[in-house]
Amino acid sequence: MADLRDVAVIGCGCTKFGENFEWGVDDMLTMACFEAIEDAGIEPGEIQAGWIGMQYPFTGFSGATLSDAIKVYDIPITHVENYCVSGLDAFRNACLAVASEQYDIVIACGVEKITDQGGRGLPTSGMGHPVMMAGLTAPSAFGLAFTRHSLEFGTTKEHLAHVAVKNHRNGAANPKAHFRREVTIEQVLKAPPIAGPLGLLDCCPISDGSAAVIITRKDIAKKKRDDFVTIKGMGMSAYTNLMMYNKDFDYLAWRPTVKAAEAAYKMAGIKEPAKEIDLAECHDCFTITEILNVEDLGFCKKGEGGPATVEGRFNIDGEVAVNPSGGLKCFGHPIGATGIRMIYEVTKQLQGRADGMQREGAKVGLAHNLGGLGGIVCGIVILTNEN
Amino acid sequence: MADLRDVAVIGCGCTKFGENFEWGVDDMLTMACFEAIEDAGIEPGEIQAGWIGMQYPFTGFSGATLSDAIKVYDIPITHVENYCVSGLDAFRNACLAVASEQYDIVIACGVEKITDQGGRGLPTSGMGHPVMMAGLTAPSAFGLAFTRHSLEFGTTKEHLAHVAVKNHRNGAANPKAHFRREVTIEQVLKAPPIAGPLGLLDCCPISDGSAAVIITRKDIAKKKRDDFVTIKGMGMSAYTNLMMYNKDFDYLAWRPTVKAAEAAYKMAGIKEPAKEIDLAECHDCFTITEILNVEDLGFCKKGEGGPATVEGRFNIDGEVAVNPSGGLKCFGHPIGATGIRMIYEVTKQLQGRADGMQREGAKVGLAHNLGGLGGIVCGIVILTNEN
Repeated sequence: MADLRDVAVIGCGCTKFGENFEWGVDDMLTMACFEAIEDAGIEPGEIQAGWIGMQYPFTGFSGATLSDAIKVYDIPITHVENYCVSGLDAFRNACLAVASEQYDIVIACGVEKITDQGGRGLPTSGMGHPVMMAGLTAPSAFGLAFTRHSLEFGTTKEHLAHVAVKNHRNGAANPKAHFRREVTIEQVLKAPPIAGPLGLLDCCPISDGSAAVIITRKDIAKKKRDDFVTIKGMGMSAYTNLMMYNKDFDYLAWRPTVKAAEAAYKMAGIKEPAKEIDLAECHDCFTITEILNVEDLGFCKKGEGGPATVEGRFNIDGEVAVNPSGGLKCFGHPIGATGIRMIYEVTKQLQGRADGMQREGAKVGLAHNLGGLGGIVCGIVILTNEN
Repeated sequence: MADLRDVAVIGCGCTKFGENFEWGVDDMLTMACFEAIEDAGIEPGEIQAGWIGMQYPFTGFSGATLSDAIKVYDIPITHVENYCVSGLDAFRNACLAVASEQYDIVIACGVEKITDQGGRGLPTSGMGHPVMMAGLTAPSAFGLAFTRHSLEFGTTKEHLAHVAVKNHRNGAANPKAHFRREVTIEQVLKAPPIAGPLGLLDCCPISDGSAAVIITRKDIAKKKRDDFVTIKGMGMSAYTNLMMYNKDFDYLAWRPTVKAAEAAYKMAGIKEPAKEIDLAECHDCFTITEILNVEDLGFCKKGEGGPATVEGRFNIDGEVAVNPSGGLKCFGHPIGATGIRMIYEVTKQLQGRADGMQREGAKVGLAHNLGGLGGIVCGIVILTNEN
């Protein structure tokens, strides 16, 4: 078989994220896909199969929506829905299919239209789910994590604010980011409360957007461009729907991230993540989530996420540039598109052509998504330009 | 790589389909998965990855629901949603992953809970979609196909009734079928109208149910059981969301089926489907759909589907046993579960241990799903016991 490490990304595209009132799902999907197709230097007709990540479809939703966007018909297209990991899992299945050598060139993309769905977007009202209906929303679940982390390790709201300031600084430089402005520590601390200890500027926005990448094998990639990137590691892990009720769940680490990272690092041969990874797009749906992520991903010791952020260890020129794009926090979070947008960002960083801030000399980059009720599913992809 | 033809099914399970008021999604999933696990003679812990097909999730839905059902955590699980092809596409992605040799043993399953979802099940009210809201439902779309087929080829309501009679005769013998009764030509013809020319007994029911299969490579399968089955052919095809508005769409053939069959037959090396395929589970959501399917799949000439059915060519002992399980029409149709249920049926037929009527000496069996608005996505899998 083609080794999974021989799977390559040869093109990527991404719309501006934000309140894209003037664009529908079809518009955004078409823009992202054709940017990726042009970037890869291929014709649409060369695409042999597709995968699309989307969490909140209008009515039903089939692969045909992607067929219509790229105007390529009669090929297999799979729609993957896995909460916030939808995009990254679509990418993973596309990579496995390429590794199986059933297809030469495929497309993986993600899209979401959330801001003006008339209440049919995010399930803010719970939509009948027993936990959500009881009021446990994403901000309140991660708010509990901050309280516990604070009690155990002394993490403060100032630490959280430094995450927001860093990610807005990165995102402000990125023309495709949802928000293009910096924020100050004072602004974050004084923002209106959303849930428990988390304020408005601790939370990522609800965004519209789409991203797409073209995937092939290394031997074909070589004929298309010199600066393709390849898979170095991959991990995915699903835990239980009842995680937050488990008596052994301490809100101090997210097991899906820990387990997916173990698998991805093992495949990549990475022993010291902070030294061997140059940049990471990680799932900063809330500022506290990034602090947990950098710990769970091994970029610093457990409990040190806050101080390490303040020290600048995750700045663009720090040990690991964390969310150089601006992250979910500033770049935005159209659920199904986010994982593919991360692959887009990591690929462009490794090619030395980031839209915003560039991590100098980047050789290894990681994408990380956490999804589901309280964070029960995780996907991790590690890419490299050292082929 | 492991050839896709070296991918094997070594175990399968299926709940009773029907109005399963006493069971929830979790219950049905657990029953189907553990039946498959026991049938394969493996321990749950041997499962390295999972795929689940489900079209109408409660609130959000992630792979963790399957983790909880099989009590296997920290593995990758993908949720696939692709209309009526959701289950078969979950199976397809699982097979590609096994062919990539990233996993040795995986599970693919499907589940749906429709009958008592309080209106949140099938989108009968259109849920905002411009076509559905205008009143074009599944029965009315396929009703148009009957009108056209009738005009062109003289297909009659009596021909349709013979499909229902055959599939109810098959399903009545199957303890897991939704309906376990035969119907007469007269009953079908006198049934209350549903949409246009189609009556109640021309339509498949809305059902609850779940099915699961265990997939591995041939070299591992040999150690588990002698009567495993392997992939002989596979095809999938997505067309356009606007198919029914295309000026070249004549309602006489379903292009996704024709294209997916081309791909599957090419891979399988099948030249004369009616002679080389012993049985087929095909997507008889309506009686007219089966008539179109047997033509599109090449089991008879275009236009001959009705008379061929009346002649008994698709009976259990006919040229091709079509829907020996009873099909969607009688066995039931829990959307996400249906494709996997077909793999279950074909596998058991090829092992000579069908739950209901057995096709004697079956060596090659086909599963076929048609899904999406008007039938715009198709998946086909051909299995064989000739390894």
